[in-house]
Amino acid sequence: MDKSRFQTHVSLKDIKISDSFWSPIMERIRTEVIPYQWEALNDRVPGAEPSYCMRNFKIAAQMTHTELNYGVDNSLGFDGYVFQDSDFAKWVEEAAYSLVWHPDSVLEQIADEAIDIVCNAQQSDGYLNTYYIINGLEKRFTNFRDNHELYCLGHLLEGAIAYYEATGKRKLLDAMEKYVDCVDKLIGTETGKMRAYPGHEILEMALVRLYEISKNQKHLNLARYIVDERGQGPLYFEEEAKKSNTPLRWDRSYMKLQYYQAGKPVREQKVAQGHAVRAVYLYAGMAEVAKASGDDTLMDSCNALWDNIVKRQMYITGAIGQTSQGEAFTFDYDLPNDLVYGETCASIGLAFFAKRMSSIKPRAEYADVLEKVLYNGTISGMSLDGKKFFYVNPLEVQPEKFLKYDNMPRHDVERQSWFSCACCPPNLARLTASLGSYIYSVRPDALYAHLFIGNKLQLKLGGTDVEVSMETSYPWEENVDISFSMTGKADFTYAVRLPAWCDNYSIKLNGQEADFGVEDAYALISREWQDGDKLSLVFDMPVKLIQANPKVRDNIGKAAVMRGPIVYCLEEADNGKDLHRIYLEDKPGFKYKFEPELLEGVVSISCRGKRLREWDKDNLYRPISSAQFDDTDLLWIPYYAWTNRSPGEMLVWVHTR
Amino acid sequence: MDKSRFQTHVSLKDIKISDSFWSPIMERIRTEVIPYQWEALNDRVPGAEPSYCMRNFKIAAQMTHTELNYGVDNSLGFDGYVFQDSDFAKWVEEAAYSLVWHPDSVLEQIADEAIDIVCNAQQSDGYLNTYYIINGLEKRFTNFRDNHELYCLGHLLEGAIAYYEATGKRKLLDAMEKYVDCVDKLIGTETGKMRAYPGHEILEMALVRLYEISKNQKHLNLARYIVDERGQGPLYFEEEAKKSNTPLRWDRSYMKLQYYQAGKPVREQKVAQGHAVRAVYLYAGMAEVAKASGDDTLMDSCNALWDNIVKRQMYITGAIGQTSQGEAFTFDYDLPNDLVYGETCASIGLAFFAKRMSSIKPRAEYADVLEKVLYNGTISGMSLDGKKFFYVNPLEVQPEKFLKYDNMPRHDVERQSWFSCACCPPNLARLTASLGSYIYSVRPDALYAHLFIGNKLQLKLGGTDVEVSMETSYPWEENVDISFSMTGKADFTYAVRLPAWCDNYSIKLNGQEADFGVEDAYALISREWQDGDKLSLVFDMPVKLIQANPKVRDNIGKAAVMRGPIVYCLEEADNGKDLHRIYLEDKPGFKYKFEPELLEGVVSISCRGKRLREWDKDNLYRPISSAQFDDTDLLWIPYYAWTNRSPGEMLVWVHTR
Repeated sequence: MDKSRFQTHVSLKDIKISDSFWSPIMERIRTEVIPYQWEALNDRVPGAEPSYCMRNFKIAAQMTHTELNYGVDNSLGFDGYVFQDSDFAKWVEEAAYSLVWHPDSVLEQIADEAIDIVCNAQQSDGYLNTYYIINGLEKRFTNFRDNHELYCLGHLLEGAIAYYEATGKRKLLDAMEKYVDCVDKLIGTETGKMRAYPGHEILEMALVRLYEISKNQKHLNLARYIVDERGQGPLYFEEEAKKSNTPLRWDRSYMKLQYYQAGKPVREQKVAQGHAVRAVYLYAGMAEVAKASGDDTLMDSCNALWDNIVKRQMYITGAIGQTSQGEAFTFDYDLPNDLVYGETCASIGLAFFAKRMSSIKPRAEYADVLEKVLYNGTISGMSLDGKKFFYVNPLEVQPEKFLKYDNMPRHDVERQSWFSCACCPPNLARLTASLGSYIYSVRPDALYAHLFIGNKLQLKLGGTDVEVSMETSYPWEENVDISFSMTGKADFTYAVRLPAWCDNYSIKLNGQEADFGVEDAYALISREWQDGDKLSLVFDMPVKLIQANPKVRDNIGKAAVMRGPIVYCLEEADNGKDLHRIYLEDKPGFKYKFEPELLEGVVSISCRGKRLREWDKDNLYRPISSAQFDDTDLLWIPYYAWTNRSPGEMLVWVHTR
Repeated sequence: MDKSRFQTHVSLKDIKISDSFWSPIMERIRTEVIPYQWEALNDRVPGAEPSYCMRNFKIAAQMTHTELNYGVDNSLGFDGYVFQDSDFAKWVEEAAYSLVWHPDSVLEQIADEAIDIVCNAQQSDGYLNTYYIINGLEKRFTNFRDNHELYCLGHLLEGAIAYYEATGKRKLLDAMEKYVDCVDKLIGTETGKMRAYPGHEILEMALVRLYEISKNQKHLNLARYIVDERGQGPLYFEEEAKKSNTPLRWDRSYMKLQYYQAGKPVREQKVAQGHAVRAVYLYAGMAEVAKASGDDTLMDSCNALWDNIVKRQMYITGAIGQTSQGEAFTFDYDLPNDLVYGETCASIGLAFFAKRMSSIKPRAEYADVLEKVLYNGTISGMSLDGKKFFYVNPLEVQPEKFLKYDNMPRHDVERQSWFSCACCPPNLARLTASLGSYIYSVRPDALYAHLFIGNKLQLKLGGTDVEVSMETSYPWEENVDISFSMTGKADFTYAVRLPAWCDNYSIKLNGQEADFGVEDAYALISREWQDGDKLSLVFDMPVKLIQANPKVRDNIGKAAVMRGPIVYCLEEADNGKDLHRIYLEDKPGFKYKFEPELLEGVVSISCRGKRLREWDKDNLYRPISSAQFDDTDLLWIPYYAWTNRSPGEMLVWVHTR
C-alpha cells in the first residue's frame, strides 16, 4: 500500500456543519431520535414493546427493586434480544456526537448516570454483558456465533470512544478497555486460548479506533486476530455448534457459515456474501486493519469486495442486501426492486466501508458511493419528521404485494414508529450525528473534500492553522463556495471530488479559472494559499436518465431519473395507480424546481410521459398489437422522501420506449 | 340455469384413445407411474422416504407383524402425513382408469388385495381413517380444518367409484358409502349435528359423483350441505380452534380462513383466494352441486370465480396459485414469472373445474382453458420419461435465484423423482388416465367435441348407436378428421369447439364446405347424419406472439410465443445464458418444424432475435444511451417439455422492441 496517500478523518470537534439539507436532519436526530430512544431504552414509550435495555443493566448492576424504579413489573430476569446492550451503546454514541456540535448539560448528565449504571454492572474481570451476567456467567463465551457478546462489546467500545472524544470523560472507555483485556486473555492463537471471533462483526472497527487512542499494539493485534481467524479451518463456529449441540442456523440454506462471512478466510473472500450488515461491518474493519498494519493481501480482498458490491450487487440508491432471507446478499446482478431487503443499516455500513476506503486511497469512487448512500438509501430509512423508520428500503412498491407475500415480512408501505429490534434508527442517528467526520479526509499537506455540505473546518495544513468554509445549497443547487481563512500563507493541496454523475464542472479560484490537476477523479489545487482565497465550484446538474447494466434482469428496458446525487421516484400520490404502465420517451422534457413547501423542501422534477393504455376487454392474453399510449404528466420526488404523504405505489425504475 | 344445455360426460368404457400426443403419456402413466407409486405406497422404493400409506392401513386393519411383512421396522405407529390414506385412494383411482383402457389382471388383483386390506381397516360404524384408527378414535372429527379426514374420504370415494365403474366390483364403493353414512350422521344443520365441513375440499365433487350412481338424495344433500355451510358464521373452524386451543395456521397471514375458502359463505365469494388446489376443488364441487340442484345463486359464484381466475389470476400456461406461501392465489393481475408457485395439482384442479363448467353450459372458453392446462401447465409437471415430477411450474428460471432465495422452497431447476407429500404425480396420473372423459360432453341429441385427441367413441345419438372417430396429429398439425359410423341415419348436432387461439378455420363435410351455426364459439353442425359421413377440420396454426394485459406488471413490454394451444419457451440448452437479454422484434420470421428426435417429438420454432449487448465496462449504472443489440438465432421448445435435457435458465415471456 502507498502509505503516502493515507489520510485521517477530521475530528468532530474541529468541524461545524451548517447546511440547509443536513442541519435539519441532524436537528431531528438531536431533538427527536435521541430523546425518543432514551425513553425507549427505559421502557417508557407508551404502546411500544419494552426494550428492557437499561433494565437489564440495572439488574446486572444488582440494583434493588426500589432503585430499579421499574413500575409494576418486578421480574428480575433478562429480557429483550440477546444483543440488547448494544442499544445503549448506540444511544450513548449518537448522544456523544450530538454533544460535540450541540453541548447540552442535561443530556450529558443523563448519559453520565447511564454510564454509571452500565459500569456498575461490570464484573471484576472486566466482563460486561447483561445477558450472561443475569442468566449465568458460566455460560458466557459458549456461543460466539449467535449470542452477540463481541458485537455488544464492539458497539459499547464505539460508544465509549465517542463519549470520551466528546466529553473527555474516560469512565466508560476505561471500563471497555478492561472488557477488551478480558476478551483478549480468552481468544487468540496462543495455546490455551479459544480461536473464537464474533458472529456479528463490528468489534474489528472499534478495536482499531481504540488503538488509535490507546496506541496500545495489543488492541490492533486483537483486531487483526479476529479478522485473520475468521473462516480459518477447523471452523470455530462448527466446533462450537458441535460442543453445544445446537445446529448452525443457516445450515439449511445455501449460505451456511457464509452468513457470518466465515465460510473461508477473509483473504479468500472476493464476493460479498451473507448477512449484509455483518458483511460491510467486517469489510470496514478489514480496511481499518489493513491500513493500520499495511497489509496488502488483506487490502486486495477489501478492493475485490468493494468492487463486487458496487459493480455487481448495489442498488442505484446505495441499498445492499437483496433478500430478506438472512438479510443477505444474493448474487451478482440480482437486483429485484420489490423483493429487495436493502436494510437501512446495511447502507449505513456501506458508508462506513466507503469512508475507510477513501482514507486509504482517495479515489473518488469511494466518496461517490458514500454520497449515493447518504443522499438516498440511508435517509430513506427515516421519515421527514424523524419519528418513523424503515428497516427495508424497496425501489418498487405495490402495497397489495407487500400485504400478500409473507416472504416480505418487513416490507412496509409506511415507516414504522420503532422496532423491537431497534437497529436501524439509532444506527442512522450515529451516522448522521457524526456526519462531520465524513466530509473530509486530511494529510498534513492536503485536504480532500469528499462531500459538499456547508461547514466550517479548523485544521492545520502545511503547518499553518487554517479555517476552511464551505457554503452550498447542494444537492439542490450546483454551486459550492469555499473560502480559506488563515494568518499568513500556507502551502497545501485542496482536493475536490469530481462527482461521477457530473459531466461538466467549473472550478474558479478568486474568480479566475483555477489551475488544477486531476487524480483518481479528484481535482487537486496545489498552491500557496492565503487568507481570503475563494474557490467557486459549479457542478452541472441536469436531470439524467440512468440505465442499469443489461445483466440486471429486473431493469432491462427501464431507466431511473437522477439529478446530481439524488435518485428520484414516482409516487402514487402524484402520479396515480399502476405506475408500472408508465413509460418514458427519449426526450421527456425534464423540468425541475425547488419547492420549499413540498416534503420539507425538495427539488421536484416534472416531465412528459406515456401511460400504456388499459385494454377495453377484461382478459389476460391476446395476440400482440402495437402498444397504445396516452400522454401523461409525471412528477418525480426524491427517493429518500417517499411515503411521507399518503402511502401507495412507488417506482424508481420506469419503462422506456 | 338452462337445463336444456346440460350435458353429461362420456363413460371411459365407451371411448378408446389412440393419439400420437396423449397415448404415449398415458402409456407412461400406466407403465411407469402406477407401478412406481404402488412400490412407493408400500415403502419399497430404495432411497425414497417411506410413504407408510399401506402400512398404516395394515396396522389399522390389525394385521399381525408377520402379515405386515414390513421388513425390519416393526413399529406399529401411524406414520407419514395425516392425509396419507389419500395416496392409496389416488392410486386405486388411476389404476381403475387404466384398467378400462388397458385390462390387466395382475394389476386388478393387486388392487383387489389392497382394497381388502383397506376395507379390513374399516370400523363397525363405517369410519375409515388410519390416522385416527391408530392414534385413538376418541380424537376423530376434532380437527376438520387441518387433519384431512373428509379430504381422505373424498379421495377414497373417487377411487371407489372409479374402481366400481372400471371393474363392476362394489366392495370399496360399499365401504365408502358406509363411511359417507357415518359422516352424514355426524355433520349437518340438524340439531345435535356438528356444523363441520372439510378443511381441504374434494368430498363435494366426490359426493355428487356418488349421487349420480346411487341416485340417493342423501348423497347430494350432504354435498350441498358442505358447500353451503362453508364460511357461514359462527365460523366452524374458529369454534374448533377455540375448543382444541390450537391457533389457526394462517392467522398470522392476511389469508386467515380464506386459506380454506371459509372466510365467508361461498355465494359471497367472487374472487379466487387461498390455497389454490383447495379453491379449484371447491369450485368444481360447487359447479357439480349447482348443476345437480339447479342452484342459480351458487352458479353465479361459480361464474364469477371462473372469470376471476381466467381473466385475472391465470398464467398463460394455465398455472394458478401465484405464491408458495400457502400455495395460494394472491391478487388480480399479480403474475410473477419466477416466484410463481403454479402447483401441478392446481392446474389439474382447474381442469376439473373447466370440465364441469363446460358440462353445464357449452361455452368454448371453458374448454379453451381446459386445453391450455392440459397441454401446458399440467404435463409440465412430469418428465418425458414419466419418472420425475414438478410441484412448482415457473415461467422463468434463473437457477441461482432458486438456490439462493429460501422463499422458493419447492422451486427446482429439475423435476424430482418423487415427493414425500406425493400429491402431484398421482393427481397427474388420475387426470391423464381418465382423459377420455374430458374430450366430449353429450346430450341425447348433441355431441360436443371440446378437445382434439385421436379417439373412437361409441354412444347413442338421436336414438341411434353411433361410432364417432377422431383422427389428428394435433397439437402439431392443423387437421382433425372425424368420421361417423352407424346403421341407418340419425338426427343430431355435432358441435366442435372453435379454439380461441384460432383465427381461421375450415370445416368440410364430405369434402364440401359444411353448413353450420356458431354458438358460444362452438360450430354446431346439425343434420341427419349417416354412416360414412366425414368431417374435415382445419385450424390454422401460425406461430403467434401473445401479450399480457397491461395490468400484469411482470409482463409489460414482453411477449410469449404460442402455436395452437402450445406455449413455447426458450431454454439455456438451446439459447445460451442470460435469456433476459433476448428481445423479439415485430417480425421475428418464425419457422416451425416437427422434430421427431427432439423431446420425444415436438414442433420446435426458430426465429431471429436480438440480444442486448453486454457493456464493455464492468459497472452497474450509466447515463442512458441507445440500446445496442446483436443478432441471434432463437430456438423455442414447448413449455411442457422444459428441463428434460440439461437444466438451466428458461423463459416464457420475452422482451419485445
